[in-house]
Amino acid sequence: MIIGVVGGGQLARMMIPAAEALGIEIRVLAEHQDSSARLAATAVGDYRDWDTLSAFAKEVDVLTFDHEHVPTELLEKLEGEGTNVRPGSQALVFAQDKALMRERLSSLDVPLPRWVVAKSPEDVDAFLAIEGGEAIAKTPRGGYDGKGVRVISSGEDVSDWLEAGAVLLEQKVAFRRELAQLAARRPTGGMRVFPLVQTIQEGGVCAEVVAPAPGASDELKAEAARIAQTIAEAVDVTGVLAVEMFETEDGELIVNELAMRPHNSGHVFTEGAVTSQFEQHLRAVADWPLGDVSLRNEWAVMVNLFGDAGESRVYAAMEHSPEVRVHSYGKEPRPGRKAGHVVVCGSDLEHVHQVARAAARAGESEES
Amino acid sequence: MIIGVVGGGQLARMMIPAAEALGIEIRVLAEHQDSSARLAATAVGDYRDWDTLSAFAKEVDVLTFDHEHVPTELLEKLEGEGTNVRPGSQALVFAQDKALMRERLSSLDVPLPRWVVAKSPEDVDAFLAIEGGEAIAKTPRGGYDGKGVRVISSGEDVSDWLEAGAVLLEQKVAFRRELAQLAARRPTGGMRVFPLVQTIQEGGVCAEVVAPAPGASDELKAEAARIAQTIAEAVDVTGVLAVEMFETEDGELIVNELAMRPHNSGHVFTEGAVTSQFEQHLRAVADWPLGDVSLRNEWAVMVNLFGDAGESRVYAAMEHSPEVRVHSYGKEPRPGRKAGHVVVCGSDLEHVHQVARAAARAGESEES
Repeated sequence: MIIGVVGGGQLARMMIPAAEALGIEIRVLAEHQDSSARLAATAVGDYRDWDTLSAFAKEVDVLTFDHEHVPTELLEKLEGEGTNVRPGSQALVFAQDKALMRERLSSLDVPLPRWVVAKSPEDVDAFLAIEGGEAIAKTPRGGYDGKGVRVISSGEDVSDWLEAGAVLLEQKVAFRRELAQLAARRPTGGMRVFPLVQTIQEGGVCAEVVAPAPGASDELKAEAARIAQTIAEAVDVTGVLAVEMFETEDGELIVNELAMRPHNSGHVFTEGAVTSQFEQHLRAVADWPLGDVSLRNEWAVMVNLFGDAGESRVYAAMEHSPEVRVHSYGKEPRPGRKAGHVVVCGSDLEHVHQVARAAARAGESEES
Repeated sequence: MIIGVVGGGQLARMMIPAAEALGIEIRVLAEHQDSSARLAATAVGDYRDWDTLSAFAKEVDVLTFDHEHVPTELLEKLEGEGTNVRPGSQALVFAQDKALMRERLSSLDVPLPRWVVAKSPEDVDAFLAIEGGEAIAKTPRGGYDGKGVRVISSGEDVSDWLEAGAVLLEQKVAFRRELAQLAARRPTGGMRVFPLVQTIQEGGVCAEVVAPAPGASDELKAEAARIAQTIAEAVDVTGVLAVEMFETEDGELIVNELAMRPHNSGHVFTEGAVTSQFEQHLRAVADWPLGDVSLRNEWAVMVNLFGDAGESRVYAAMEHSPEVRVHSYGKEPRPGRKAGHVVVCGSDLEHVHQVARAAARAGESEES
């Protein structure tokens, strides 16, 4: 089994250990020579270039992704030529285009914020009038980690975006906290749902994850699982699906974003669960039996390392406590960049959280 | 940090995930293009060839090993040129030469079988007379997995070996079971001792490992740890040291073999312990802080996959139970070859053992 991954970021990098364990040959189409997943890079080039992409695809049994930026029309063309694209273009488009996602999910029994696609400042003002003067604006495509998202209070606030095309507007949900529900699904339909986790964002970027989501009732967990299963089946997702959700002050869930690949909120499962999200993704896209996703301890906490995860920071995190699990993405330092993460597991949430946070801070440079 | 590994077997392969997590660049000097560790192979050649070995060593910060077959004189020459060889030649020689090992350990406070180095059939017969007519004969160098070991009852039985050189003779220990004690030590002296495990051999080859060793008393565990620590410090081991031991019918420990690298008996720790032996080895040879080696469940059982661990066998093992963790070494099938292993963890030893064994048998071909 040869699995090709488009994109050489940390998600591709973290598929490498899973592939090595399972005897899967992993090949990466990387953006540049020094990509995070360079160890498995067999091609370097532009994934938007048909010749580059199709040549890479021809040499693999299954094509999957580190990111969702491959143009839909290229994916459709690959599928037309018989490539096993997983997730397929018909599913991936809903992770690529947030307006299409809202439209598609509106036909399913899943809870959404109020939303509208605005094409003019007047459309924006009309929605703001309904929403009490404040809303969330998103570019339908290309956003990530807080980019392409704004809190707005007038049509002026998105006039630049409107010049380029339609803008998705969403209700600004008053939420208690953010949760993420991961699931993995095989082409032949088998599915497994990971434990519900809580994500803690800073500036629109995931900073910490706690598994399982503290204090979540069985009803809440069942509803989150149902939402992920409903979406995965309705759009025929293969591989890992991540559903980011708000938990409102009333304890209701509202779907925020989708990703159809391993997701930052699932890094906690590499140590936290019997089967990591990376292995589960590979098993799922290979149409192999899915693994157990039970948690291995009462608690697991992940804290991202921003800016830099070079040798001195890795050393400092390991030195902080022998129980700290460190992951460096092998990237050049850059302020704010997701450069690595730490995970700590145990039976005492307060202890686990404190050790993970302190390890992440240890050796942090001024610029990080 | 660039770590070079001499040898492209499964031990080198299983260092790759640990290196990727820690941001260590791993390079492998492999025997051939299709080695188990081919993903990280940056050189293919003969490790007994000075030019090949020294060129490889020049490009790494630390040199370590997948096996102990690199000639001592080449290692000494590398050290003379300033290469960080870990473990160093002065330690590794005791894993390379069983007669030297017995001699060195005799000066330490560790329990050994009776032994002698025989140079003639008369020497052999003299030792056999003391031992009641039966003994174990070993070639001092080059043996592994039951090769280079014979049960003998006369000088005739090793006449072929004696023509090539001296033969190590050892008391045939009446043992209740076999145990293995792993430890890891940094160049600057920090050391961590893994939980004591039981190994189950078939035909002189490790077939199963149970962690922790069932029913081992605290005294026995402390004695096993003391033996490993004594050896590691006395010979200045860096990296992982594996001490294979017999537990006699009287509950005494006797040192059987040494290895100074990750060891089959430690595969169980990849899932079974907080820190795997592969990561611990890399941390140790890099002189980085060592990780926690606590077990993550009450029990972990490893069962080797012999002969073949190709796609259909991996699939069958995963299909047997979602809790099975599968490792394929990416090798061509060959009868009797160590091709992979499975690990199962849990709180019920009988269940864990049964699932691991059944998963290992699932999909086994006739020839395996």
